[in-house]
Amino acid sequence: MKPLGPIPAGYAAVDGVLAIGGQPVTHWAEQAGKTPFFVYSANHVRQRVAELRAAMPKRLSLHYAVKANPFPPLLSLMTELVEGFDIASGGELEIVRGAGVPLDAVSFAGPGKRDVELEAAISAGITLNLESEGEAARAIAIAEKLGATPRLAVRVNPDFDLKGSGMKMGGGAKPFGVDVERVPALVRTIRQSGAEWRGFHIFAGSQALDAEAIADTQAQSLALAARLAQESDAPLPQCNLGGGLGIPYFPGDTPVDLKLVGDKLAARFADLPDVLADTAFCIELGRYLVGEAGVYLARVVDRKESHGEVFLITDGGLHHQLAASGNFGTVVRRNYPSAIATRFDTPVEEEASIVGCLCTPLDKLADKGGFPRADVGDLVAVFCAGAYGASASPASFLGQGPAAEMLV
Amino acid sequence: MKPLGPIPAGYAAVDGVLAIGGQPVTHWAEQAGKTPFFVYSANHVRQRVAELRAAMPKRLSLHYAVKANPFPPLLSLMTELVEGFDIASGGELEIVRGAGVPLDAVSFAGPGKRDVELEAAISAGITLNLESEGEAARAIAIAEKLGATPRLAVRVNPDFDLKGSGMKMGGGAKPFGVDVERVPALVRTIRQSGAEWRGFHIFAGSQALDAEAIADTQAQSLALAARLAQESDAPLPQCNLGGGLGIPYFPGDTPVDLKLVGDKLAARFADLPDVLADTAFCIELGRYLVGEAGVYLARVVDRKESHGEVFLITDGGLHHQLAASGNFGTVVRRNYPSAIATRFDTPVEEEASIVGCLCTPLDKLADKGGFPRADVGDLVAVFCAGAYGASASPASFLGQGPAAEMLV
Repeated sequence: MKPLGPIPAGYAAVDGVLAIGGQPVTHWAEQAGKTPFFVYSANHVRQRVAELRAAMPKRLSLHYAVKANPFPPLLSLMTELVEGFDIASGGELEIVRGAGVPLDAVSFAGPGKRDVELEAAISAGITLNLESEGEAARAIAIAEKLGATPRLAVRVNPDFDLKGSGMKMGGGAKPFGVDVERVPALVRTIRQSGAEWRGFHIFAGSQALDAEAIADTQAQSLALAARLAQESDAPLPQCNLGGGLGIPYFPGDTPVDLKLVGDKLAARFADLPDVLADTAFCIELGRYLVGEAGVYLARVVDRKESHGEVFLITDGGLHHQLAASGNFGTVVRRNYPSAIATRFDTPVEEEASIVGCLCTPLDKLADKGGFPRADVGDLVAVFCAGAYGASASPASFLGQGPAAEMLV
Repeated sequence: MKPLGPIPAGYAAVDGVLAIGGQPVTHWAEQAGKTPFFVYSANHVRQRVAELRAAMPKRLSLHYAVKANPFPPLLSLMTELVEGFDIASGGELEIVRGAGVPLDAVSFAGPGKRDVELEAAISAGITLNLESEGEAARAIAIAEKLGATPRLAVRVNPDFDLKGSGMKMGGGAKPFGVDVERVPALVRTIRQSGAEWRGFHIFAGSQALDAEAIADTQAQSLALAARLAQESDAPLPQCNLGGGLGIPYFPGDTPVDLKLVGDKLAARFADLPDVLADTAFCIELGRYLVGEAGVYLARVVDRKESHGEVFLITDGGLHHQLAASGNFGTVVRRNYPSAIATRFDTPVEEEASIVGCLCTPLDKLADKGGFPRADVGDLVAVFCAGAYGASASPASFLGQGPAAEMLV
């Protein structure tokens, strides 16, 4: 039997069935009108934000990284909970606009911004996190053509990375941001252009669970921001310290020690150099805010045995949950947390693999896990499905189409 | 510098620019009206089919595996070129119906067929490749309810695999097909139900380049089909020998020796046991027919240097070409064939990485390859993009949306 990832806190059985938002998932399946579907728990998100607020210094604002989950009702909920939004494309600009997000709270990072995207963002008053000198020149020229004052920040390619992070975004040659030594010159160019100078975006990595490493990276980011502000001879209105906080996906993973991160950051904030005295600080979180709030549910359509192994074949799969199948940025496949949702308080009775309906051996949701005995009609839950699930998976593959999504 | 995969035969420069279907890709970019886009060459597909016909015994029919590329104009072209189509979902059934594919030439394989999909397939007269006893029972019950005679075949989980294949589909416990020893009983059940008995589907693996291994697997499949037909005490109207023929993606890969496969299969066909004397044989190919006929084209939107490395940042990326980014079924990332399409006959001038526009380090199309010096506005080509490209990638990721597609 292979271990499964840890089921996030806050999920329990009601009459034997996994409940979300106080209702069994069988109820949500009826509401969705089809399987598979994603359920996102508003309460889970609210609670996560409350925990963050309690642990972090008041001076730190929270931004939501839309790329993690752009489901419009979730974005609307976020407008009540966070101070800012980070988008990564013109498409996401239209999504946040449609969801009623205030556009002056939006910033736009991404290495390949097209002219048409720069134009839309400048027109909407969005802050651009510039990724290169070339992009800065294009943005300034477009703003001039529009007769607009662009709001410009510089994304810094930090000379350090976030240790233990799932995605390293700094510490060497990268397509993201501007190398440290070239930042002061670019800041001067931007300020001389008459643009509104917004500050720095420093993103060293994401999906880390080690609180000491996260705190250490935040300290390095603050020191770098101070040094670059001084060398640029410019005030620093804003500094986006990036993300970094991960969630446990795999066996043995444990949650980030939020108090440690918050306490260390508070100590740093109490001891900031003068150049950062008036700077507004934020962190930009996606997965950490919504990842554990989402559950993917699929129905068992066949139960079969082959050479003594049990396969639970579902109507879901990697077309909705690519990362859970182990095919997205992972080298060695490990099991996400999963369960038989309709037998959520039944003990383990057998070893089974949960697979999707796609005709490819890649389509595996749980490999040889321990589960209660499930049969056709049961619902299977894959947890940690709130981020990089529906929108990060090839929904059209094999003609399947998207899953339903609901915020409850 | 890291090596790039081999560019498929048949691509050349016209006035320095990569040409497809006799026109430079700059022409197709204008026709598409946007970048990125996929171009599929009808001539390339026709030629590939002609090569197959020339090498393979006449008795072997060709089927197209729709999952490789379901672009409707390509399906329409295929109706002129192949004898059958294999689909993998009810969604693909609607796609082939819309493209004018004759439905009596269609078979449906896939481990997680829902009741509603079985019903649609039986109503349309499609052959079902049954994956389990449970699915067989559901299909027979649904046909009875409909008052229809279902066309039923059994997908066999072979007791061997295709050596060196990228995707193993047999040789052990699998979610696909019925274990060999249980096949005869299922065949009897199907025939006793009054269904139209169609035969076997034996798929041992895909994406193999070793002709000897492919020939060996075909020989094993024929022997298995004969044995199972005898043990089932049933005639064998059809036998689908699966796929297996791969295309070269990576440095050092070489094309399948088609003549060797064809000659060996012809020799087997000349020496078939009596029980297979009247059997119609087919192979089911997707990637091999269309993979090399497709090119993905994206525009360079930024050229930047970081720590001495050159990054060509494009408006495309893994949201259209997940496999080329190394994130789909690959353990170690290697470079697909790629080129600067607008400088196609210019020699290598520098080392550069071609990346996509997504804000993630996963979004890499070519890692430290050798290219002519490219700049903003140049078009980049990723080859081998005709199969498992557009439909197998997360097009909505980061709000990007799908690429354009055209058959020329």
